[in-house]
Amino acid sequence: MIRPSDRMPDELRKIELEINVNKHAEGSCSIKCGDTHVICTATIEDKVPKWIKDTGEGWVTAEYGMLPRSTDIRMDRESKKGQAGRTHEIQRLIGRALRGGMDLRILDGFQIKIDCDVIQADGGTRTASITGGFVALYLACQKLLKEEKIAKNPVKAFVAAVSCGIVQGEPVLDLDYVEDSNAGTDANFVMDENGGLIEIQGTAEHGTFDKEQLSQLMVLAEKGIKELVALQKKALGI
Amino acid sequence: MIRPSDRMPDELRKIELEINVNKHAEGSCSIKCGDTHVICTATIEDKVPKWIKDTGEGWVTAEYGMLPRSTDIRMDRESKKGQAGRTHEIQRLIGRALRGGMDLRILDGFQIKIDCDVIQADGGTRTASITGGFVALYLACQKLLKEEKIAKNPVKAFVAAVSCGIVQGEPVLDLDYVEDSNAGTDANFVMDENGGLIEIQGTAEHGTFDKEQLSQLMVLAEKGIKELVALQKKALGI
Amino acid sequence: MIRPSDRMPDELRKIELEINVNKHAEGSCSIKCGDTHVICTATIEDKVPKWIKDTGEGWVTAEYGMLPRSTDIRMDRESKKGQAGRTHEIQRLIGRALRGGMDLRILDGFQIKIDCDVIQADGGTRTASITGGFVALYLACQKLLKEEKIAKNPVKAFVAAVSCGIVQGEPVLDLDYVEDSNAGTDANFVMDENGGLIEIQGTAEHGTFDKEQLSQLMVLAEKGIKELVALQKKALGI
Amino acid sequence: MIRPSDRMPDELRKIELEINVNKHAEGSCSIKCGDTHVICTATIEDKVPKWIKDTGEGWVTAEYGMLPRSTDIRMDRESKKGQAGRTHEIQRLIGRALRGGMDLRILDGFQIKIDCDVIQADGGTRTASITGGFVALYLACQKLLKEEKIAKNPVKAFVAAVSCGIVQGEPVLDLDYVEDSNAGTDANFVMDENGGLIEIQGTAEHGTFDKEQLSQLMVLAEKGIKELVALQKKALGI
Amino acid sequence: MIRPSDRMPDELRKIELEINVNKHAEGSCSIKCGDTHVICTATIEDKVPKWIKDTGEGWVTAEYGMLPRSTDIRMDRESKKGQAGRTHEIQRLIGRALRGGMDLRILDGFQIKIDCDVIQADGGTRTASITGGFVALYLACQKLLKEEKIAKNPVKAFVAAVSCGIVQGEPVLDLDYVEDSNAGTDANFVMDENGGLIEIQGTAEHGTFDKEQLSQLMVLAEKGIKELVALQKKALGI
Amino acid sequence: MIRPSDRMPDELRKIELEINVNKHAEGSCSIKCGDTHVICTATIEDKVPKWIKDTGEGWVTAEYGMLPRSTDIRMDRESKKGQAGRTHEIQRLIGRALRGGMDLRILDGFQIKIDCDVIQADGGTRTASITGGFVALYLACQKLLKEEKIAKNPVKAFVAAVSCGIVQGEPVLDLDYVEDSNAGTDANFVMDENGGLIEIQGTAEHGTFDKEQLSQLMVLAEKGIKELVALQKKALGI
Repeated sequence: MIRPSDRMPDELRKIELEINVNKHAEGSCSIKCGDTHVICTATIEDKVPKWIKDTGEGWVTAEYGMLPRSTDIRMDRESKKGQAGRTHEIQRLIGRALRGGMDLRILDGFQIKIDCDVIQADGGTRTASITGGFVALYLACQKLLKEEKIAKNPVKAFVAAVSCGIVQGEPVLDLDYVEDSNAGTDANFVMDENGGLIEIQGTAEHGTFDKEQLSQLMVLAEKGIKELVALQKKALGI
Repeated sequence: MIRPSDRMPDELRKIELEINVNKHAEGSCSIKCGDTHVICTATIEDKVPKWIKDTGEGWVTAEYGMLPRSTDIRMDRESKKGQAGRTHEIQRLIGRALRGGMDLRILDGFQIKIDCDVIQADGGTRTASITGGFVALYLACQKLLKEEKIAKNPVKAFVAAVSCGIVQGEPVLDLDYVEDSNAGTDANFVMDENGGLIEIQGTAEHGTFDKEQLSQLMVLAEKGIKELVALQKKALGI
Repeated sequence: MIRPSDRMPDELRKIELEINVNKHAEGSCSIKCGDTHVICTATIEDKVPKWIKDTGEGWVTAEYGMLPRSTDIRMDRESKKGQAGRTHEIQRLIGRALRGGMDLRILDGFQIKIDCDVIQADGGTRTASITGGFVALYLACQKLLKEEKIAKNPVKAFVAAVSCGIVQGEPVLDLDYVEDSNAGTDANFVMDENGGLIEIQGTAEHGTFDKEQLSQLMVLAEKGIKELVALQKKALGI
Repeated sequence: MIRPSDRMPDELRKIELEINVNKHAEGSCSIKCGDTHVICTATIEDKVPKWIKDTGEGWVTAEYGMLPRSTDIRMDRESKKGQAGRTHEIQRLIGRALRGGMDLRILDGFQIKIDCDVIQADGGTRTASITGGFVALYLACQKLLKEEKIAKNPVKAFVAAVSCGIVQGEPVLDLDYVEDSNAGTDANFVMDENGGLIEIQGTAEHGTFDKEQLSQLMVLAEKGIKELVALQKKALGI
Repeated sequence: MIRPSDRMPDELRKIELEINVNKHAEGSCSIKCGDTHVICTATIEDKVPKWIKDTGEGWVTAEYGMLPRSTDIRMDRESKKGQAGRTHEIQRLIGRALRGGMDLRILDGFQIKIDCDVIQADGGTRTASITGGFVALYLACQKLLKEEKIAKNPVKAFVAAVSCGIVQGEPVLDLDYVEDSNAGTDANFVMDENGGLIEIQGTAEHGTFDKEQLSQLMVLAEKGIKELVALQKKALGI
Repeated sequence: MIRPSDRMPDELRKIELEINVNKHAEGSCSIKCGDTHVICTATIEDKVPKWIKDTGEGWVTAEYGMLPRSTDIRMDRESKKGQAGRTHEIQRLIGRALRGGMDLRILDGFQIKIDCDVIQADGGTRTASITGGFVALYLACQKLLKEEKIAKNPVKAFVAAVSCGIVQGEPVLDLDYVEDSNAGTDANFVMDENGGLIEIQGTAEHGTFDKEQLSQLMVLAEKGIKELVALQKKALGI
């Protein structure tokens, strides 16, 4: 099988991470995965949600948006019709994923909001948001450390995410839009730098999948996430 | 480890399925999983969503709601504040899961809407909605068949769902609310009667999980779903 | 005239009241009036609405909802399109009716919310909500008394409600959906156990009605409400 | 008992009806009842609501609004927060009341919308809206007749409305705001010019009321509505 | 060129200002400019918006609404569909304009809200709202002064507004609806009584305009606003 | 006076225009004015708004949004709370401005939507949106021409916009955020390449301004817009 992008089955798209792309944010990262482009910014707030108060923990949350023409067919602005179910589902996933790499007790008293805005979409916007969002989050934590507002780094382990899928019967890594539309099974993996699973979401679009196939996808995901973490660290110069 | 409900690690809660509980609906099923109680009704519409037209397929979708006092702390009605992100996420999952057992081409021209309303919640409302909702869906298909509006049964395979989790280090089947709140890892499995995976969603609430643990959970899920499918068929008298 | 349900003109439908149907609520009652089925739950809050503060009184309020397929034609969820005018009108009526039996000064500092959710509708859902809701309210008051949060029973007199109407020229008690659709005049009565009127709402659907007819309906209503109060007390074992 | 306004118990407030107060509307009427001031306009539409189509009838509906400073304490605009339950309840009442005087079959194909906007409120805004709104509706019907769009006058009988209440134990007619706030029982009556009842809504604000009291209020209402209909006809010059 | 209203190019429509038209408001003014009719009421609040706190200043703001049948074609109520962009734009303009004549430091601790509700529209509703709204604002300030809640008059200079436009190539003052619809260029001017500009908004509806034309319009506006301020003062008896 | 950015009073910020920055849109342009960064995309639709049908004209409209962290203080997403008044005001201005350079008759049957999304804000986002948006619009027109969907170029004249203001008593061109916050008078000018005015909006933030000052600002604006048009053409290679 030849992939539409001529990539090998286990090959990521070209990934570009650029930090400090926003003069206002406490941390920011632009991530391009092929033609998918997401801008991630971190905002530090010195108050936490009501339900986290008095738990001795801080909080990390995420919001996700798409520019109207980030897609081939223009989407109506959600400011005109309210947030879609898909948006809610994605931003809840991003939040859970980012928190998976954090020791929230160190963030006690602070909330960090990661905004992930899709400038251009070509598949994998939610996984790109997690990978890029974690870099913005890391930068915000560094800022808190530098200003001595927290005692030590709340980042326990780097977190990244990637999609895998079974396309024309073959497991492939990092689906672009064309592949995603044709995949029989599509799974998103969130892992930390040690290979620990934080979240797995696998869906059979047509038919079903079995344990064996899930294992094959997981092997691809581990490889991809390892590479993504290396790129995160390189962008951060660490 | 002793479970709060005194169950064995691989033991489902007491499941009660009752069909035809609503005089208006084209199919209906009440499902109780322990103290979790969901009423599922099927509505047949002879028109399909705009984006499904001219595809030669019909559609199955789901909506999910909770009565205000289905929970320990009363929830505000979503009719007053709009549907929460969690609601969107759950009803999208239910819809995908139900479609996983259907041959939508046979439903061409029809949409079946499954409403899943939680009367009382004690963990596992989304998986109960899938298991009970599929029974309501089955009944609606039977009605279409009987009325000769469709040529053959669109149900390819029965679909059911269950949650599993790692509680105090031990994998257990079918979490109730107390277990769910304390689980380190929590996963929902949707499978068909042949053991084919339709959806898997696993999340590490604290820490991470590994492939080995995921496999253990999947073994439990297979056992539980097999039992649930048997109960679905028994309730339907087939 | 023969009623569609074969009932006598002054005969209630079969009424079934069941208490404590919800494990979470501070009081609960399931009420079935023929094929109409409403679940009523009471929630005690230890704060009162802003405008009731410093009046030396507590408050009782109600909310009303219908499951999408409680009706013959599926209704859209109000969580998707906001609460309809009819919903507002009904829940305001239920609240006023329930307060009519209460000494709110004894409830000072507390609000009790009665949720009335229609599982299945066949006419008379608002009056069933009042009759069943008062039982849930009574139970919540008992709980407050038992926990010594209030000094004496705030229930002054039991409250129940019923509809009457003029169908094919004849006054009849407790209309079901078919009768309601064909009634020339339709009136809802809320009374306490002593026959005191709390609310009367009479509407001529076609033509007008006169004082004499109103009196006839009131005689029916008194009989019906007397029977309903007896059933409320029986369900409560008092 | 001396009424705050020095009126006799069976005396209406000073009523001023002025027609054709709006250059754009197909019918309009300004009504002042003491310090309560409502502007009513009629809009003719040559299409009917979807659910009235093919019934051989037209439709009459009403909308109700209050200017923010029509009240002593400024109210937030409903355009900012959505229509309140009270608004829905009132405009549904106005619509039903106006339809009570109409032969809708003659209006087949047309909808007449009556907008009732409260410029200043001092009690009785809903009954003033009905009384003034019917005049605007009458004018719109005349216009349809004149333009030969309908064959005969759809007005079967004039409709007006008034409130009565029991204040300090005494039945009085046409409550102003101060009386309304202190009334033990408050009832709104809608009648046609022949004394036929179209709607009655009676509520005990404190305690209950009995049949005898209801009869006393009805006598007052009949007197008031007779006078109001005379004033409607005088304003219309008929 | 003969204007539709037979006015001279530099002639205002007939202006009628009436004060104290509302018994509840802290200041009120009815303004008629030809067939345009706006009711302006002032509400004094003894709290300021959050973002104005601790600035040592008070605040003046405005809200704008139109009755549904103020226009030739009935408009849907904004309470049913939310405030339109045009409404936002206009009420922001009115607020800025009114503040332009005020020393907000004297109002420290108070907010005055000016509600401008259009009873009938025939062009120029936003400028009428400013001219009438300023009179209501003046009266509210007088009330604060009288009650010794503020030390001196916060009105620095009277503010009024008028539209001008180029119709059929000729600059004219105070456009009515017909002229407004046909104007090539349309400009709204807000000035104080000393001729100081507070706001200018000029738009070319078709083609463009040049500096010379803008100057001609400004000359007309100065004349009109001078006359309007004289009428404001006359209505106030100062 | 030394400007915060060390610019001369009549000096624009550094302007960067880049075309074809989006692979999906029918035209796109990224514009940077100093630290203000806006992405403008054009979407061609082959249907027009209802109210433009049968007029023989096409339509050009605009929408405007800001990323949450485009500003120093994070803004809530409008998808969560609805579009603010400021957003409505700005996007209406952008639409009017863009249409000012177009012959809409040539666009008959088409609507072009220009989305202007602010990636980073530092003053002048609405004028940057107009200047950049016109380039995207031009590209979309070229595409329609190339595909022979329209017969000739609907662009009559290039349109650009710039703000001017009086800061510390001195008129300056192209305010950045710091200057904008301190300006006594602030005006936005939209002109075409021939110096024709399309829109002028001038506001006195404190005090008032006079005709002389307005003239000075207009001279600056003419100079700036001339330079901006040259940059637009250069970016387009024409």
